[in-house]
Amino acid sequence: MEDVQNRHDDREVAIDQVGVSDLRCPITVLDQNQGKQQTVARLSLSVSLPHHFKGTHMSRFVEVLERHRGELTLRTMPSLLAELRERLDAESAQVEVAFPYFIEKSAPVTGAKGMMDFECAFLGTATGDTTDLVLRVTIPVTSLCPCSKEISDYGAHNQRGYVTISVRTGTDAEGLPEILWIEELIAVAEASASAPLYPLLKRPDERHVTMQAYENPAFVEDIVRNVAVRLKADPRVLWFEVTTVNHESIHNHNAFARVAWTRPSKN
Amino acid sequence: MEDVQNRHDDREVAIDQVGVSDLRCPITVLDQNQGKQQTVARLSLSVSLPHHFKGTHMSRFVEVLERHRGELTLRTMPSLLAELRERLDAESAQVEVAFPYFIEKSAPVTGAKGMMDFECAFLGTATGDTTDLVLRVTIPVTSLCPCSKEISDYGAHNQRGYVTISVRTGTDAEGLPEILWIEELIAVAEASASAPLYPLLKRPDERHVTMQAYENPAFVEDIVRNVAVRLKADPRVLWFEVTTVNHESIHNHNAFARVAWTRPSKN
Amino acid sequence: MEDVQNRHDDREVAIDQVGVSDLRCPITVLDQNQGKQQTVARLSLSVSLPHHFKGTHMSRFVEVLERHRGELTLRTMPSLLAELRERLDAESAQVEVAFPYFIEKSAPVTGAKGMMDFECAFLGTATGDTTDLVLRVTIPVTSLCPCSKEISDYGAHNQRGYVTISVRTGTDAEGLPEILWIEELIAVAEASASAPLYPLLKRPDERHVTMQAYENPAFVEDIVRNVAVRLKADPRVLWFEVTTVNHESIHNHNAFARVAWTRPSKN
Amino acid sequence: MEDVQNRHDDREVAIDQVGVSDLRCPITVLDQNQGKQQTVARLSLSVSLPHHFKGTHMSRFVEVLERHRGELTLRTMPSLLAELRERLDAESAQVEVAFPYFIEKSAPVTGAKGMMDFECAFLGTATGDTTDLVLRVTIPVTSLCPCSKEISDYGAHNQRGYVTISVRTGTDAEGLPEILWIEELIAVAEASASAPLYPLLKRPDERHVTMQAYENPAFVEDIVRNVAVRLKADPRVLWFEVTTVNHESIHNHNAFARVAWTRPSKN
Repeated sequence: MEDVQNRHDDREVAIDQVGVSDLRCPITVLDQNQGKQQTVARLSLSVSLPHHFKGTHMSRFVEVLERHRGELTLRTMPSLLAELRERLDAESAQVEVAFPYFIEKSAPVTGAKGMMDFECAFLGTATGDTTDLVLRVTIPVTSLCPCSKEISDYGAHNQRGYVTISVRTGTDAEGLPEILWIEELIAVAEASASAPLYPLLKRPDERHVTMQAYENPAFVEDIVRNVAVRLKADPRVLWFEVTTVNHESIHNHNAFARVAWTRPSKN
Repeated sequence: MEDVQNRHDDREVAIDQVGVSDLRCPITVLDQNQGKQQTVARLSLSVSLPHHFKGTHMSRFVEVLERHRGELTLRTMPSLLAELRERLDAESAQVEVAFPYFIEKSAPVTGAKGMMDFECAFLGTATGDTTDLVLRVTIPVTSLCPCSKEISDYGAHNQRGYVTISVRTGTDAEGLPEILWIEELIAVAEASASAPLYPLLKRPDERHVTMQAYENPAFVEDIVRNVAVRLKADPRVLWFEVTTVNHESIHNHNAFARVAWTRPSKN
Repeated sequence: MEDVQNRHDDREVAIDQVGVSDLRCPITVLDQNQGKQQTVARLSLSVSLPHHFKGTHMSRFVEVLERHRGELTLRTMPSLLAELRERLDAESAQVEVAFPYFIEKSAPVTGAKGMMDFECAFLGTATGDTTDLVLRVTIPVTSLCPCSKEISDYGAHNQRGYVTISVRTGTDAEGLPEILWIEELIAVAEASASAPLYPLLKRPDERHVTMQAYENPAFVEDIVRNVAVRLKADPRVLWFEVTTVNHESIHNHNAFARVAWTRPSKN
Repeated sequence: MEDVQNRHDDREVAIDQVGVSDLRCPITVLDQNQGKQQTVARLSLSVSLPHHFKGTHMSRFVEVLERHRGELTLRTMPSLLAELRERLDAESAQVEVAFPYFIEKSAPVTGAKGMMDFECAFLGTATGDTTDLVLRVTIPVTSLCPCSKEISDYGAHNQRGYVTISVRTGTDAEGLPEILWIEELIAVAEASASAPLYPLLKRPDERHVTMQAYENPAFVEDIVRNVAVRLKADPRVLWFEVTTVNHESIHNHNAFARVAWTRPSKN
């Protein structure tokens, strides 16, 4: 049976990325408190293709993934990327793994417990000697408008907002990325907004978060700045991008803000 | 060329609906203030198929639609349904037309103007001598939690909510559905929530809606009940269903409530 | 702290459903081959509310769910529904649990293995003495157009289609629903289409499924009829609804067909 | 009433983008054949914010938009960006306008006509003296797998694919972007795939496109390369990125490829 993909191509167009996307499978990730957590991921895996080959071999992406989904974290990503490059004979490889991550949260007064979901992603690229790894976490929060509070005799509009933090960390002695837990980024975002969200609030808890939000008004601008100040102070963080989107309760559109930052090199 | 669809089928299974869906095209609808409004619809059109025919003729749905999209309203729906039945030789026909509808809204204090969008749909079914027509409108609103306000020393959590109203009206002398304007359902929903949304609010307007929401706390239960009371009082309304979904600003999940009602017959 | 929800309401509007929606949490379901499977669900839980109460107690839905998510199947649904009614003092309760379900599939010639995802849902309602339970599974398949094959000298357009089957089964001696495995509905849908999908196909497998699809052309009408014939022949099935949606490869819209059926009672 | 946004901020964090998103409104765009076309857009508008200001003035984005939506094209974008910078006193401004664009297409044999939709976007950024403008169009096509055709005795799997082309063009004598019509990018993508899609096909047309696709097999790699060759040959194009995503009819995941290219400068 002919290998059509291996035919010569003379259009002189090298391809930056070719692979599979929107692939869903169960994966196991690390959990700061429980050790491991089983969840469900949506993935894309791709490689570069030199100009002289007609096509890549799509089935190999799934074969390689099958061997790695038993434990898939930023620290296993370098070996997944290396295997993709080797198996597909490629200069570079890219992987995106998006998944909901669950944390048991306790209500602030009664301690009532429930599970809350956070959208996360591991993003990896390997080219030449360089492996680039990014952790991305989206944290839903309460935001309460400082302007609305200031100009009104009572009340203040507030709403659900989504803080998305992407970070690159440095490398440890083994060349693996320094660990920055999903739980740590959640804590940064929640401390930077008007109040955290909870899966389960009894009345004393609801009173608590209502007043907490009123005492901590924050624009989208304030939330991204508060996150920025905290991440700059963490020496593990070499780069970050933070975006906040508020689903304004007074409009049918959103307000958003975005800041990116790279740690200046020491020289 | 053989007409494969016309072949005899012996599986003895009549088909309730067969047709096209997720079809997008520009349409013109009626506008209470401007006369007409051009928008973009997502449609599904289908017919029933007797057990002895293998297939329907999909291209005819698009042909019929092309003749009707120049003006598409609940009052032109009966002729669209009739033409589908005739052209496809079918006992029954169904049409769903979903589209954003735009209204210019003025801010409550300064009068500053902007366009705001509302998701709407016309739903029609014709079988035998009966034509059933439903208008559906989703109205985004502010809801402010009565419990949060009552139990807290200051503030109250609030959020964007979506009120979806579906209605059937009676028939006029010509056998066409009595007109109930999209604008009227928007007014009903906005009066039933804590405050309306606006596309454009200057500071005096923001102060106004912040305090208006605080003065009118409403659970999802309250909003659907307030809508229900208003619609029952409108003699044009023979049936309605109203659902409110609040994107809770203190949780990462929603709260919702639903009520359906049919006007008792006079006998 | 006042219980605002318990206040008397005099609008005379009973509420059909009030509760929480779009709640995401990890659950464990039964797996025909593995015993159990951990996945991630999106849920809505609701109850009815009599006209004289102002509101329901939203936090209790999450409390009840926490006790049941360790094993959530159609057979544990009656006790979940009963607990919701008791805890929320309600006449009726409704639960929807939607989740991806994963099956390891082997390629038809080489036997190469990978995981494939299927969207599933458990839908339950309890009112008075009646508990109604529905299993819904969406199975992606290949469909190849019989008309295109017949009228063309070579080739035939084909595409990914989605077969959604909802079923109600009878009750066993304990009053629990008779088991109909997700795996069984997948087999019914795959046998009713032009060819199954696979997560991983090597070249001999790709040759196999290409020719299998060409040999088994099927309109959306054929697929729903083939499913209908198979489900009618299964005495466990008391009711079903089957919808097929084909993402036509020659159009930017879809073709769909739908059939519902209730087993005639024996009397 | 205090202008809270104008307060001094001392966190030393300049904000890259702050503004509104997910705003929907009717707009008028240019149409190569009809002169003008009314459609519905989803927009985001933002500006940069210096580190010493607490917040931006969100209502001004909507005010500026209201003055420009009567005609919104890549050639009016520079004045929209300039007005945003002036009105919001900002160093830089960004605008994204996404909208469905409709073209009347005639079937290849019978000439039967219908409307087909294409997702488009205008993306603009202005900083310092530079205005950067990108046109993005997504064109749905048929792709037929060369490998499947080659290795099978009959048939070949095919599916709907989506070709997304983004381009930057040069500037004309007035400093405005050279026109490259949406219709031209659609023609490029359709010629680069196995066959175009149509809204309406009668049987002779269906025979035509079935055989056309079988005669022109193309991997995702082939489609992006064919587009690349055509765009490189167009001297108006200074940069492009093309991505093709095929909704594989044999898998429940997609295949994709991406190429970006910048025209080498003449020096």
